[in-house]
Amino acid sequence: MIKNTQVILKSTPEGEPNVSNFAFTESDIPTLNDKQVLCKTLYLSLDPYMRSQIAGRHISGSIKPGDVLHGETVSEVIESLDEHYKVGDKVRCMGGWQKYSLHSAKDLNKISEHINPSSYALSVLGMPGLTAYAGLVWQAKPKAGDVVVISAATGAVGSMAGQLAKIYGCKVIGIAGSDAKCAYAKEQLGYDECINRGTEDLASRLDELCPKGVDIYFDLVGGEILNTVSARLAIGARIILCGLMAEYNQKERIGGPPPGFWIRSRAKIYGLVVYDFEHRRQEFIDVCLPLINNGSLKTREDIAQGIAAAPEAFCRLMKGANMGKALVKVS
Amino acid sequence: MIKNTQVILKSTPEGEPNVSNFAFTESDIPTLNDKQVLCKTLYLSLDPYMRSQIAGRHISGSIKPGDVLHGETVSEVIESLDEHYKVGDKVRCMGGWQKYSLHSAKDLNKISEHINPSSYALSVLGMPGLTAYAGLVWQAKPKAGDVVVISAATGAVGSMAGQLAKIYGCKVIGIAGSDAKCAYAKEQLGYDECINRGTEDLASRLDELCPKGVDIYFDLVGGEILNTVSARLAIGARIILCGLMAEYNQKERIGGPPPGFWIRSRAKIYGLVVYDFEHRRQEFIDVCLPLINNGSLKTREDIAQGIAAAPEAFCRLMKGANMGKALVKVS
Repeated sequence: MIKNTQVILKSTPEGEPNVSNFAFTESDIPTLNDKQVLCKTLYLSLDPYMRSQIAGRHISGSIKPGDVLHGETVSEVIESLDEHYKVGDKVRCMGGWQKYSLHSAKDLNKISEHINPSSYALSVLGMPGLTAYAGLVWQAKPKAGDVVVISAATGAVGSMAGQLAKIYGCKVIGIAGSDAKCAYAKEQLGYDECINRGTEDLASRLDELCPKGVDIYFDLVGGEILNTVSARLAIGARIILCGLMAEYNQKERIGGPPPGFWIRSRAKIYGLVVYDFEHRRQEFIDVCLPLINNGSLKTREDIAQGIAAAPEAFCRLMKGANMGKALVKVS
Repeated sequence: MIKNTQVILKSTPEGEPNVSNFAFTESDIPTLNDKQVLCKTLYLSLDPYMRSQIAGRHISGSIKPGDVLHGETVSEVIESLDEHYKVGDKVRCMGGWQKYSLHSAKDLNKISEHINPSSYALSVLGMPGLTAYAGLVWQAKPKAGDVVVISAATGAVGSMAGQLAKIYGCKVIGIAGSDAKCAYAKEQLGYDECINRGTEDLASRLDELCPKGVDIYFDLVGGEILNTVSARLAIGARIILCGLMAEYNQKERIGGPPPGFWIRSRAKIYGLVVYDFEHRRQEFIDVCLPLINNGSLKTREDIAQGIAAAPEAFCRLMKGANMGKALVKVS
């Protein structure tokens, strides 16, 4: 009988997680009941919001010691009691950090054969891509000439948002954590500029690069960067609040900018949760798939090999050491 | 020759202003040049934003020691070199804290005779009323059944916003600084509830009164109250950032709530500056004047007598000791 390998949270990390916070467990594959579908995990998506689940602060639920970690996967059907799914179908589902997962058919989403490689259903055409599209296009509504600033500029969401902003004719300034990421942002993703937040003074660089202020800020980090950008908004600015990388490793939430910054710029600020845009996913794919196929949108995936590599890959992600969308190729 | 009496800032206050921060000066009335109009001040509007001008933080400009204080007035034309204005016309203008003011005709706005008393052009049908209407109706877009929280509930803006929210069929919770204000909010303005922020625990009272969270928060204060309300938002909440009473008397700006509160509630936050809605003033008056005339919208003015009373009336306003729109009847 095949055994399932699962990654469980061993202990709740304080600050940055490390591999000792995780453990592996082996278990039997449950037998299928009515309408259930058994899947083999092909790719597991690793995302910063998982740190927030572990901290008990995420809207999608909490992960406590002993729990199998949650996560979206691209999986392949290996056994099915539902007529809509047959062995070999590739699906997107909440497979979690494990080799096999059992689902009700209603919790599966078939992946179009046009999405190739199928890992794109977790990256550029998946949740991060939809997040970037929803925030930038549907919420912030970019206009040609807008000055757009994007933190975590080369991350899964940021890299997509930056490229989309260029397509809309914006001036796009990235913020990233290393010279290598800044070079990648400018040379591969088309950012006009990218500020290394570790070695450059963000405030003075923004003053220099955005003399008329920032029209759109796509915020993936919160904390001090949100504050610094908020002090430099143009009239009518839009801010997409979408990630909190600065506080995911912290015990407490970090306060936001003084509201006076937002009043004086007449800013519109949008809290973005990608689940709200699930019903528009096809519309997003219809726009972006051709742009990927014709090379207008580039993507990069940082793929760790095997489920055993998942904890380390996640810890690298939470240090910002990944380059591109963090994935684990499970089988 | 008539002499003008002006109120100047004598010294920049630290913290709450007091009357010793102000001084009076007498000066000659200048002679009129081309197209100018000389006005006698009837009513001077006192508003919290003036504290921000004195602190040098307001978008409309700064007041330094020695400057005559700025302010909107209802004034009467007493001499005119412009054909569009004749002696006796009542106008709304930036007359400032003084008995007489000289203007270019283009800086005057005639007050319709339907606005009666003319002081309403500074209160319920003036800038505070337009602020409330723009924020609540045009930005927050209230729906029947929405739970609306309004800080500074009985102030010039809050009292209008609260009554408008009731007209839209919302459940309206006020926050105010005294039992007398809370009683006025409930008994006269129609608030469903009003929380005394000085004697009641805001967090637990909001939990009790808004078990499903807050749909609209009209924020006139910033600071800790904004934080406490932001922790209790319903999905799809709207926040109007419109005033910063909590920081006007402070040396530094006060930080805002953790952005995570706004992400999880998918909030839309709007920075409101009433000047942006000046072009829609008539639309607002057309809606609200009949509501005032038929008693659906009530108003209350806290009128000090004589220009000499202006500093003390302003200090009372900045302590929250006024009840209703703070005005000075100058002549």
